[in-house]
Amino acid sequence: MTEIKDKPLQIFLDELASKAPTPGGGSAAALMGAQSAALTSMVCNLTVGKPKFAEVEADMQALLAKSESLRERLTAMIQADVDVFDRLMAAYGLPKEKDEQKAARSEAIQAALKEATEVPLACAGLCAEAVALSRIAAEKGNPGVISDAGVAAMAAYAGLKSAALNVYINAGSLKDRSLAESKLAELEALLQGAEGAVEEIYGIVKAKL
Amino acid sequence: MTEIKDKPLQIFLDELASKAPTPGGGSAAALMGAQSAALTSMVCNLTVGKPKFAEVEADMQALLAKSESLRERLTAMIQADVDVFDRLMAAYGLPKEKDEQKAARSEAIQAALKEATEVPLACAGLCAEAVALSRIAAEKGNPGVISDAGVAAMAAYAGLKSAALNVYINAGSLKDRSLAESKLAELEALLQGAEGAVEEIYGIVKAKL
Repeated sequence: MTEIKDKPLQIFLDELASKAPTPGGGSAAALMGAQSAALTSMVCNLTVGKPKFAEVEADMQALLAKSESLRERLTAMIQADVDVFDRLMAAYGLPKEKDEQKAARSEAIQAALKEATEVPLACAGLCAEAVALSRIAAEKGNPGVISDAGVAAMAAYAGLKSAALNVYINAGSLKDRSLAESKLAELEALLQGAEGAVEEIYGIVKAKL
Repeated sequence: MTEIKDKPLQIFLDELASKAPTPGGGSAAALMGAQSAALTSMVCNLTVGKPKFAEVEADMQALLAKSESLRERLTAMIQADVDVFDRLMAAYGLPKEKDEQKAARSEAIQAALKEATEVPLACAGLCAEAVALSRIAAEKGNPGVISDAGVAAMAAYAGLKSAALNVYINAGSLKDRSLAESKLAELEALLQGAEGAVEEIYGIVKAKL
């Protein structure tokens, strides 16, 4: 089976649009996050090594290392979202005729739901990190390509809000309510941190155009 | 030369991150818009033909036709953004030793800038349309996949705000200020229309989860 990241954009978009349940919004969220990290890397790559920007050389090198690591993790999330959904569907598909089958199925579903809450929550966390990195690119990057830092901020924020929807859905079905509440609290902290930040970053970029 | 849409996601992301000036934020904006249209299509494809949703069948069929047409136009924009940037760079690269060369170069740059304003403005317009279509998906689509309509709204909005940055940059360099002002006014209308809408759509989706 070809990993999604190795498929042409056109095929990915065709599959996203199709009635197949995956790839869906979770993969789109991860791809938006990966695009964000890529654009922060682009700003770094067009800043480093230029005498004009020598003052921020070390900062931009450090930022580039972080954004490239983040890009790799977010790219892997495009596939991870599909895999976790498939495992959840497999659990729902378990037999439920006998009482002991019912118990085993319910346990499998809850285990899959926990994972299906944690994977988009991890994606949301990486997108929040992508927002933070785009701010450094906006503040210190080559002003000639600063608009790409603004796109990085918007893409990461869209990825975060999108991943959040899958956390809401799956945490909502968790029977372990204290686990669910703690995951939702983590998510709220990520959302609150990013919300004002994105508008600020966009403002910083717009002021430099 | 391979069109971007025919390249694997991983290669696209690698090129986005690289120091090559294209693809950049404009292509990322178009891809976010295309993802939005694809997700609206997905909601339609998972709603139509189901007796349970017979009441919205005609609406969803009509929405699907629109979102698929929009997806095609936004997918083409991924490449169009690169092409228009290349033409702008070619114009800046024209010789400027003699006075008549200078005049010809300046004219070519202004023509390319006009196009480099209109292409992202068109992308912004398509993204605004994608926001509007995601609302119908959120309101009338299969509630079981409604989160994808929320992702569609966020992706389209990020695409719109991202495309806007390229309009600001290129309109800012246009010598024909009345043309520039009219393009910027068009953009502001798109942004104002989408801003409140996106929060509403996200709220509609979240309430249905």
